Amino acid sequence: MTDSTPRPGGAEVLSALAEVIEQRRQADPEQSYVAKLHARGLDEMLKKLGEESAETLIAAKNDDTDALVSEMADLWFHALVVLAARGRHPDDVLDELGRRFGLSGVAEKAARETSGRRSDHS
Amino acid sequence: MTDSTPRPGGAEVLSALAEVIEQRRQADPEQSYVAKLHARGLDEMLKKLGEESAETLIAAKNDDTDALVSEMADLWFHALVVLAARGRHPDDVLDELGRRFGLSGVAEKAARETSGRRSDHS
Amino acid sequence: MTDSTPRPGGAEVLSALAEVIEQRRQADPEQSYVAKLHARGLDEMLKKLGEESAETLIAAKNDDTDALVSEMADLWFHALVVLAARGRHPDDVLDELGRRFGLSGVAEKAARETSGRRSDHS
Amino acid sequence: MTDSTPRPGGAEVLSALAEVIEQRRQADPEQSYVAKLHARGLDEMLKKLGEESAETLIAAKNDDTDALVSEMADLWFHALVVLAARGRHPDDVLDELGRRFGLSGVAEKAARETSGRRSDHS
Repeated sequence: MTDSTPRPGGAEVLSALAEVIEQRRQADPEQSYVAKLHARGLDEMLKKLGEESAETLIAAKNDDTDALVSEMADLWFHALVVLAARGRHPDDVLDELGRRFGLSGVAEKAARETSGRRSDHS
Repeated sequence: MTDSTPRPGGAEVLSALAEVIEQRRQADPEQSYVAKLHARGLDEMLKKLGEESAETLIAAKNDDTDALVSEMADLWFHALVVLAARGRHPDDVLDELGRRFGLSGVAEKAARETSGRRSDHS
Repeated sequence: MTDSTPRPGGAEVLSALAEVIEQRRQADPEQSYVAKLHARGLDEMLKKLGEESAETLIAAKNDDTDALVSEMADLWFHALVVLAARGRHPDDVLDELGRRFGLSGVAEKAARETSGRRSDHS
Repeated sequence: MTDSTPRPGGAEVLSALAEVIEQRRQADPEQSYVAKLHARGLDEMLKKLGEESAETLIAAKNDDTDALVSEMADLWFHALVVLAARGRHPDDVLDELGRRFGLSGVAEKAARETSGRRSDHS
């Protein structure tokens, strides 16, 4: 990647983060938060997911949208941790969203085409 | 994007979906789920976010990981609806995740480099 | 209980409600909400519990405390439905709370005595 | 209440607990969990409510119903903390439940009578 590619898109961030999570699951629980969650098991990860969901709701009701973005990042991160624990990848979720909204193929073109078309949540 | 790019990455799906949501917010609430949520206001969107979070937890406790992926797609979709209602974009959340995990710049390279490095959730 | 007892205390309300739930679980799902939830299974009850929890959070952030009381009633009702589905009684929860806070014996006396005493959530 | 009443019913436990919470809100945050939550504000209490709700869902999906009762106790306790913070009493919630299910008056008699009668959640 060169200067002509200014920054990775979200796909790359989510995929790279999934890779980081996969690597850290086997790390020392004393040194890695992901490894600590992994050692404690699925229920502990789900408690965090539920907690971050509540914090996202609360942040959305307040005026500070930076706090909302921060809580949403926590929520998505723990969502990726749960997906990894169940052997699934964020691309599975993105593919599902793309399929529902007709965003497969060339995304921006599809986005234009689908506005007005019926889909799961049209 | 050309024919040599067979499918959009997640960034493109999330950005395209954010664009779809933005377009449909102004649509007829009778015809568009997004417009209906938008007309009902933030609390209604947040109820859906909380509901989908609970459904994600329940699905994660069951054996069917396809159901988990499906509930997670619902959760992320309603997260994007809430972000739009508060004037924020999924890229804000992805940027925050990238920043926390050192995934800016070349994502995969950064992912390799950051494993072991301290970050918010290392 | 006689005419000199003008209205049942909360214990009686929760116990009576648990009895109502127990009776209605076997009713016609077309005619009874409890029977419908029971027929749909535990996951459906838990989704409602999660949904009412989110609605309670949202109501607590708004100014209308009557709405908070109403959502809290929904939350407690679905909590009783879940307890019944798992073969437990609200008294089990109340006993646990009484035990933690030293409220066994004569409650009001105990309440006075425990203020200042260490307990799970002192 | 006399010696012939061996243990307080749920109403007394919830009322006594509400009284304990009211007393401890003004205590030293270093010494009292309730005072610590009170000092941190409503959002902190709501985060705990959301967290305990998630833990209740998870416990309900597992086999250990004692854990379910314990998480439910956490959930109800934090519900009382939120009610206190918003100036409401558990009796308000119990009255609402009694009203919905026709459990005012003599509770057990009412419970028998209402089975089959329409109400908000019949």
